Amino acid sequence: MGEEANENSVLMGGHTKNKKDVDYGHPASDGHNENSLQFAGVLLVCQIIFMILFGVFVRYNDDGIDEDMDRTYPWFQDTHVMIVVGFGFLMTFLKRYGWSSVGFNFLFTGFTIQWSLLVTGFFHDILHHFTDAHASNATSAMHIQMNMGRMLEADFTTGAVLISFGAVLGVASPVQLLFMILFEVVFYNLNALVLGDNYIGASDIGGSMVIHAFGAYFGLAVARVLYKPNGQMDNAAEGAEYHSDMFSMIGTVFLWMFWPSFNSAPGSDVDRYYAICNTYLALSAACVSTFIFSILFNPKRRITMEHIQNATLAGGVAMGTAANMQVQPFGALFIGFSAGLLSTAGYTYIKPFLAEKVSLHDTCGVNNLHGMPAIMAAIFSIVHCAINNPDQMMPQVFGLLATLGTALATGTLTGCFLRLPAVEHLGEYEYFEDGKYWEIEEDEEKED
Amino acid sequence: MGEEANENSVLMGGHTKNKKDVDYGHPASDGHNENSLQFAGVLLVCQIIFMILFGVFVRYNDDGIDEDMDRTYPWFQDTHVMIVVGFGFLMTFLKRYGWSSVGFNFLFTGFTIQWSLLVTGFFHDILHHFTDAHASNATSAMHIQMNMGRMLEADFTTGAVLISFGAVLGVASPVQLLFMILFEVVFYNLNALVLGDNYIGASDIGGSMVIHAFGAYFGLAVARVLYKPNGQMDNAAEGAEYHSDMFSMIGTVFLWMFWPSFNSAPGSDVDRYYAICNTYLALSAACVSTFIFSILFNPKRRITMEHIQNATLAGGVAMGTAANMQVQPFGALFIGFSAGLLSTAGYTYIKPFLAEKVSLHDTCGVNNLHGMPAIMAAIFSIVHCAINNPDQMMPQVFGLLATLGTALATGTLTGCFLRLPAVEHLGEYEYFEDGKYWEIEEDEEKED
Amino acid sequence: MGEEANENSVLMGGHTKNKKDVDYGHPASDGHNENSLQFAGVLLVCQIIFMILFGVFVRYNDDGIDEDMDRTYPWFQDTHVMIVVGFGFLMTFLKRYGWSSVGFNFLFTGFTIQWSLLVTGFFHDILHHFTDAHASNATSAMHIQMNMGRMLEADFTTGAVLISFGAVLGVASPVQLLFMILFEVVFYNLNALVLGDNYIGASDIGGSMVIHAFGAYFGLAVARVLYKPNGQMDNAAEGAEYHSDMFSMIGTVFLWMFWPSFNSAPGSDVDRYYAICNTYLALSAACVSTFIFSILFNPKRRITMEHIQNATLAGGVAMGTAANMQVQPFGALFIGFSAGLLSTAGYTYIKPFLAEKVSLHDTCGVNNLHGMPAIMAAIFSIVHCAINNPDQMMPQVFGLLATLGTALATGTLTGCFLRLPAVEHLGEYEYFEDGKYWEIEEDEEKED
Repeated sequence: MGEEANENSVLMGGHTKNKKDVDYGHPASDGHNENSLQFAGVLLVCQIIFMILFGVFVRYNDDGIDEDMDRTYPWFQDTHVMIVVGFGFLMTFLKRYGWSSVGFNFLFTGFTIQWSLLVTGFFHDILHHFTDAHASNATSAMHIQMNMGRMLEADFTTGAVLISFGAVLGVASPVQLLFMILFEVVFYNLNALVLGDNYIGASDIGGSMVIHAFGAYFGLAVARVLYKPNGQMDNAAEGAEYHSDMFSMIGTVFLWMFWPSFNSAPGSDVDRYYAICNTYLALSAACVSTFIFSILFNPKRRITMEHIQNATLAGGVAMGTAANMQVQPFGALFIGFSAGLLSTAGYTYIKPFLAEKVSLHDTCGVNNLHGMPAIMAAIFSIVHCAINNPDQMMPQVFGLLATLGTALATGTLTGCFLRLPAVEHLGEYEYFEDGKYWEIEEDEEKED
Repeated sequence: MGEEANENSVLMGGHTKNKKDVDYGHPASDGHNENSLQFAGVLLVCQIIFMILFGVFVRYNDDGIDEDMDRTYPWFQDTHVMIVVGFGFLMTFLKRYGWSSVGFNFLFTGFTIQWSLLVTGFFHDILHHFTDAHASNATSAMHIQMNMGRMLEADFTTGAVLISFGAVLGVASPVQLLFMILFEVVFYNLNALVLGDNYIGASDIGGSMVIHAFGAYFGLAVARVLYKPNGQMDNAAEGAEYHSDMFSMIGTVFLWMFWPSFNSAPGSDVDRYYAICNTYLALSAACVSTFIFSILFNPKRRITMEHIQNATLAGGVAMGTAANMQVQPFGALFIGFSAGLLSTAGYTYIKPFLAEKVSLHDTCGVNNLHGMPAIMAAIFSIVHCAINNPDQMMPQVFGLLATLGTALATGTLTGCFLRLPAVEHLGEYEYFEDGKYWEIEEDEEKED
Repeated sequence: MGEEANENSVLMGGHTKNKKDVDYGHPASDGHNENSLQFAGVLLVCQIIFMILFGVFVRYNDDGIDEDMDRTYPWFQDTHVMIVVGFGFLMTFLKRYGWSSVGFNFLFTGFTIQWSLLVTGFFHDILHHFTDAHASNATSAMHIQMNMGRMLEADFTTGAVLISFGAVLGVASPVQLLFMILFEVVFYNLNALVLGDNYIGASDIGGSMVIHAFGAYFGLAVARVLYKPNGQMDNAAEGAEYHSDMFSMIGTVFLWMFWPSFNSAPGSDVDRYYAICNTYLALSAACVSTFIFSILFNPKRRITMEHIQNATLAGGVAMGTAANMQVQPFGALFIGFSAGLLSTAGYTYIKPFLAEKVSLHDTCGVNNLHGMPAIMAAIFSIVHCAINNPDQMMPQVFGLLATLGTALATGTLTGCFLRLPAVEHLGEYEYFEDGKYWEIEEDEEKED
């Protein structure tokens, strides 16, 4: 019998495994069936409600003209690639959770787009209808508009949701994630409204506060509340292998390449000019900086793949808030360099520290890629405004504080809801496994 | 010896195999050599003829100006990505046919582009020259024009061809596929001409009838004629594995993201506005719908990867014909939702039914992804026109019927030609194997 | 013990291996630590110097307006994808060097962008300031401009650098590569200056001479100087496997699709029209031609994956110089066809010939994909000019000769510098292995 175990030991992409290691966790089928029925059921109910709400509220622009379409569509498509390919493949590094990473990322994109168009439209068009007596815009009949700008906003919202997804990847059940999205999109819009021109008036073209900080700290609050001692930390299933890390690099490079589009998409021509130049430079410096500190922080002086996949992108996050400000090329390089350093340090030192000290399990390390670099982005914008545009300084400070407060408070609330026993959740030995929700071909189990 | 078999049993991406299972099928080398010489020979003859025909007939626009270039090029490139990356990688799900899927898809793209530019140009510029006495356009000297519009049309034609390829993936030989393409492009243009403004006058901006229905039913007719009882059904080689399914998801997501470009590329600004909004929404709903019904249709309530890879895209097909019609956002969601349901049901119930009852082997399930959703697209356009634009209703009906009739008839004819003994074909145990046509590195066979 | 070896023999993507074969080479850790510290140290020093130089010299356009931005940005992004995804994944074919291929490609992109912006800016803005007394442009204060045009030029320069990287992939250490880049970018700009309007006045819209020929022959000169007899040729580690070749195809198709953007990006509208049409056609013919000759040149009449990954792209290189010339569609097809033939012949016959006769180890075969097709590109432009525009003929001849001379001479010089003992280099058994520089997860070594 011991021999058999040996015979089954294999190499996958250069990694030695024994068969037990790749036995996908299949819970008792009864419980499983009920759980997945809840998953399909929640999806079906939501999709039907979405269609009804769209029927009642959402309409094309009245005149069928969207002047933003030709100008913004290539920018939108770059953003779209970041959301679906970038986030989707970035998360495929887990060796046994690749299908879930790219598959659920895909599902949540389709789901969040619809919900976000409704919620954002409600905040922009319906609320506005009540609050602004002078409203004489095209949607005066209390309708939500459907156009390029809203599609872009829906993709941005999806970005925030997928960042939160990264914090609980492999730990939250799909049903928990659906409920998380339903709540998060509302709170995301609330926060964006508060930061907007009618209230705080913060400037945040690349959405480092609105998207990255919110998404990260909302997700981390959820992750903390969902934490359970057995099976989340030190689970052998939570590992990468040679080829899963290659798939993940697909996500990394698409995010890195198109981040200038992300940070510049909503802007005017001048905004776009600064945002593209700044983000391009910040990302270049973050890429180099990550390699430097990945080596320096490693006792064996080797590069850690996780750093390259993630911290190289921190330059895009850290540049987001000040992207359209005239920080000069030097400033952009400095921001990117600092972000690569901070993020690499985050993966090396802060992530294990938080895991041990406050039981925070952050699967993708969103605190290091999105959270801390987003705070850095806000701080850079505060410093820049303090020097060049003092009137704008306090809005930036309040914007950061409001975002952090809202994200942590609403994320904690949402996490508590997700722990209700009625909401399907994962058992102790079911984390980081595709096998619970995906049909894996029979031939892989033939010889078990 | 039995022990050795055990020792060779391995896990690949979590799948257990025994070595026999990955022994690439190498036919007797004599027969193989002749076969591949026919492959290279047909390609070479065609390529030389293409160059001669281009030399005689094809010219740039006379004034070197193509006003469509800057406006349409980003849309064209999105379409181009769908054709080469989207279709190419979508078909890599087969564990031993990945090189052929992405490689032949690539070859057929290069091949079809050239042939399509000639045939489409012949139908547009040369035929037109004879039929329209008043022709005083720039190509009055009986020349075929080369410009952005024609490149877009060539990519669309390639799309139809690659859909047909999907129906016989791993079953038809490359020579058969080359002849299939030579015929199909002609019949495709014939059908497009009949549906066009001079005859039926059907409206089909996204090409659901012209591209998807034609490509699918032409290919399915070929597949039916090429069907042989031994080795096509229930062949162990026709399976996926963990990582081949990951590669396939690369295709899925690029198709999904850029489908709005595909459906809107040929249109005016207003067309594009509606087509982008509608396709974006239909795809979002189809994505959610596929997950719902993939779970509900599975006895163990697990998600089937094949559904996610394919049925999520049916929303783009089903939206194609009515993409520029004002179906309203609700209508687009409903179309996408229905398409996801229909396509998932197709993969679950209709594909095995057709396999058993009418011996139809449809490798990629193109009937489920392209065929039925395209018929649905036409029906939605008929219903929309019946209500809003009655004059256009019958052209839509005739367009659908003409397409189905032409595709099935010419596909059957083509299939009969491909069965001529002189045309290289695959033997019973040669399906779904890269090894017949590709040089696989020696070291993989060293220890056999 | 012999049994154990058997037990460890496995199949990976259809390839048989024994464990020794996947034991990543780990040199003695002391030496390694010092080496990698040099790597991190050089990177850090360069990055700091870059930031200082940017602070002193580089500024935004004075008025914050970049009229090229909206018009060129989609073209730039396509080029960006070619550089990062295209080159990065194309090089992942090596089974044990995939992380280094895509990872170092990524690092060198971030690094070269910065250095190139400085050097190119120095040649354009600073030198110009001294040589042109009438200089009254926006950067009269001796500043380097930062805008879309410079970003495009930085990406082109990175392309040349990554071509050189391909010649020494797995053979040069990262430190050697960093020094190579520092030199190459200067010499690249020198060559581009000499070829430009102030001196030779060569026409080279797609950069076949400036980018491809220079990058290839500079890299090959470096490769020749770095050649060592033990371990570069016939090293079992320098091989592909089934899935690494699939990853490489991701690079191939993105390069192939976006090459029309690469060749047309810097041009006017009319240039772009010709360049896009010509490149699209040349690539289609090269794709078909490669399949033809890959079969014909193979004794077993099978397709060689390396040819498909590379020679299909030679059409883009060979079309580069004459891309905006009116060679007519036939001419473009002929150029593409010839390039596919030449490049396939290069991989089949010339590469092994050069390896044996002149000890030239060319890991990616850049002579076949970039070098010879680029010379062909120049020759086609010479022939075209001889017939249609005689005044331009000699500049094309001189441009080619100057490029070849400069590349070989400066590459040789650079290679000599890289052989200085103080510069970290790879030992005899350390080629083509990720394990020297990357932290590979422990679990893969657990059972060694």
